[in-house]
Amino acid sequence: MNTSPAQIRPAAKARPAPGRRAYNFNAGPSMMPLSVMEQTREALVDFAGLGAGVVEISHRSAEFLALVEESQSLMRELLAVPANYRILMAHGGGQLQMSMVPFNLIAYRPARRALYIDSGLFASRAADIATRYGYVHVPGHSRDADYDRVPAFDPGWLDPEASYLYITSNNTVMGTRWQTYPDTGALPLVADMTSDILSRRLDISQFGLIFAGAQKNVAPAGLAVVIVREDLLGHALPTTPRILNYAELGRDPLSMANTPSTLSLYMMCLMLRWVKAEGGVDEMERRAERRSRLLYDLIDASGGFYRGYVQPAHRSTMNVTFALPDADRLERFLAEADQAGMYALRGHGSRGGVRASIYNAMDFAGVELLADFMREFQRRNG
Amino acid sequence: MNTSPAQIRPAAKARPAPGRRAYNFNAGPSMMPLSVMEQTREALVDFAGLGAGVVEISHRSAEFLALVEESQSLMRELLAVPANYRILMAHGGGQLQMSMVPFNLIAYRPARRALYIDSGLFASRAADIATRYGYVHVPGHSRDADYDRVPAFDPGWLDPEASYLYITSNNTVMGTRWQTYPDTGALPLVADMTSDILSRRLDISQFGLIFAGAQKNVAPAGLAVVIVREDLLGHALPTTPRILNYAELGRDPLSMANTPSTLSLYMMCLMLRWVKAEGGVDEMERRAERRSRLLYDLIDASGGFYRGYVQPAHRSTMNVTFALPDADRLERFLAEADQAGMYALRGHGSRGGVRASIYNAMDFAGVELLADFMREFQRRNG
Repeated sequence: MNTSPAQIRPAAKARPAPGRRAYNFNAGPSMMPLSVMEQTREALVDFAGLGAGVVEISHRSAEFLALVEESQSLMRELLAVPANYRILMAHGGGQLQMSMVPFNLIAYRPARRALYIDSGLFASRAADIATRYGYVHVPGHSRDADYDRVPAFDPGWLDPEASYLYITSNNTVMGTRWQTYPDTGALPLVADMTSDILSRRLDISQFGLIFAGAQKNVAPAGLAVVIVREDLLGHALPTTPRILNYAELGRDPLSMANTPSTLSLYMMCLMLRWVKAEGGVDEMERRAERRSRLLYDLIDASGGFYRGYVQPAHRSTMNVTFALPDADRLERFLAEADQAGMYALRGHGSRGGVRASIYNAMDFAGVELLADFMREFQRRNG
Repeated sequence: MNTSPAQIRPAAKARPAPGRRAYNFNAGPSMMPLSVMEQTREALVDFAGLGAGVVEISHRSAEFLALVEESQSLMRELLAVPANYRILMAHGGGQLQMSMVPFNLIAYRPARRALYIDSGLFASRAADIATRYGYVHVPGHSRDADYDRVPAFDPGWLDPEASYLYITSNNTVMGTRWQTYPDTGALPLVADMTSDILSRRLDISQFGLIFAGAQKNVAPAGLAVVIVREDLLGHALPTTPRILNYAELGRDPLSMANTPSTLSLYMMCLMLRWVKAEGGVDEMERRAERRSRLLYDLIDASGGFYRGYVQPAHRSTMNVTFALPDADRLERFLAEADQAGMYALRGHGSRGGVRASIYNAMDFAGVELLADFMREFQRRNG
C-alpha cells in the first residue's frame, strides 16, 4: 500500500514571535537544551580550533576519538555502569534494536526462545519482529486492560531455558512505565529504555542489556545506545549483518565498526555533559517527577474534564496522556496550544487524545505554560 | 580481539590560524560547503521560524516533510531518475547496504545466486558479507593486478539465473573507478556509488539499484541513499529487519519507516540545493575532472618522485592515490601538509602512501594549495 505525501502531511504551524523559543511536546525527536544547540552551531564551522567543522573531520581523528571516549565515560559515570558491561553506539533507532536484540541474543541458550512482555504498541512490535529469528513466548501482557498499566510480574514467567525476557521500560504511546523492574535472576532481562533512559536511577546489574533510541533524552535521531553485559556477546545468528552485531561493535572500544553518525555523536557528548552539569540522573529524575506531577495533579483535580488513560500507579514521568470530553474540544485544544507555541501535543494515532512528552530538556516553565493553558482552556470550555 | 583506545588514536593536529578554513582530504566524512554549514547553524536553533531547532521538531511535521520531499525531487532531478525507480533514505552507511542488498535482492531469482566483481577492499567485503544470505560467485576480479585497475568486462559474467551483478563504482581505497559501466542486459546491475554519487553523469536505467553512504558527497555520516527499480522490491528474505527492507522503506513515500536522522536529512537537502545552484551534476563532473587532472598531471610530470598506484585509464576523479620514494619522506610529507591545514592525506592502511580525497565540496583552491605544496616538497626533498 502506498500513501501519498499529501495524506501524511499535517498542516503547517503558525509561527511564534521572532526569537521566541517554542516548547516541543513531541514524543521524539524532542527538545534539546539551548546550550547544546548553541555549542553545536560553533562546532559546525570550526571544531576544536581545527578550521573544519565537526561533520567534516575524520571519525578516526584524535579530536573526534577524544569526544567519543568522553561520551563513553560520561555514560558509564551517569548510569553507574559496572565494568563488565560494554557501552555501544549503533546506527538507527529503537526499532532497529528490536531486530538486533534477537539477532544477537536469541541463540544465547540452545532453545532459541525469548520471552516478551506485551505492555503496548512497541513491546508488541518487538515481539512480532523477534518471531523472525527464533521462538517467541509472551507470558504476560496488559492487552485486556487496554494497556492502561504494565503487567504485574509473575515468577511463573521465568523460563530457565529462555535466552532473555524483554520489557519496554516506558511505553511512549500509552504513557505507562515499570516503576520497579522484574527480578529475573539468571534469566537476562532486556529493556527498551528509548523513552526513559537518563531520566531515572537504574541498577544496571539487574539487566542483561538495555537499549535506547537516542532521539528523546540522548541525541538527535538516528543513533541508539546499547549497554550490554559482556557474557551475552558472541551468540549472534550467522545472518546478523556485521554492523548490527554487538560483538563487532564491542570489538572496537569506541563502536567504530564503520563510519558513525559523527554529528549526532558530538551532540550526544554535549547532552551528557549537560546532564552531568545539571546534577546527573538523580536530578533528572527529581525534575521528571516534578514536571509530571504538575500535570497529573491538574488532571486529577479537573473533575473529569481531563481524563488520564493510565492507572495512577503506572504513570510515566516522560509521557503524560489524557483525553478531553469530545473530539471538538480536543481539536480546539490542540490548535490553540500550537498557536501558543506548544507543539505536537496530539496523542499517538492508536490512542488519540493528548500526549505531552516531557523529556529531560523540557524545562519546568514549559510544563507550567501547558498547565496554565489547560486550566484556562477548561475554564472557557468546561 | 580488543584494541585499546590508545592504539587507535592518532596524534592531535596542530591548529590553523584562527578563522582560517582548513582543507580536509579525508576519504569520508568529507568537507561540506561552508554555506551549508552556515545555514545549518541557523536552523539548529530556529528552523523555518518555528522557534524550535530542526533536530527538535517532529519528523512528521509539515515543515520537515516538505524538506524530505524537496530532497527527493532534487535527487530525482539531479540524477535524472526515471519514474519507475524509488529513492529511499536508509540509516547507517555503505556497509549496512552491503547486507541490505543481499537481504533484499539475493532471492530475486530462485537460485539465490549473486555475482560480485572484486575491484578492491570494499567490493571484496561486500561479496564476503553476501555469502551469509545466498550463493556468491565472483566471475571477475583485479586482485592479481593488486587492484590497480577495475576488471575488464567479460560478457561471460552474465549468468541469467543470477539475481544481480554487483560492482563498486569508485574504489575509495585504491582510487580506481569504472569509467563506463558493464552492460548487463536483463541481469540487474547493482552499484556501490558511496564515493562518487553526484560527481558524474549517470544513466540510471542501466542499473537495478545504486546506493551511496552519504558521508562523501551527500550529507553527514549516518545515512545512505538508495535508488532502486520498483520491480526489484518485494523479494526480501524473511529474516530481513523491517528497517532494512527496501519495500518497507518504499512503502512510505518519504522513507519514514521509523524516525530518520532528521538533522542529516536537513543537511542533505541543503547539499542537493547547493549542487543544483552550482550547476548540477554536469558541473560537478567537470570540476572533479579539473581537480583530479591537476594532481594526476603533477604526478606524471614528477619524474617518478610521486608514483600513482593506478593504471591511468582507471583513475578515479574522487580519490587520488600515490606513493613517495620512501617512508621517511612520506611521513614528512604528511606532517608538513597537516601543519599547513591540509588534513587526512594518509592513504588507507591496506595501501599506505598518500590519498587525496577530493569530493564535490573540495574547491579548486584547495587542490591548488596541495599541488603547490607537492611541487615545493619535491623541490626540497627530490
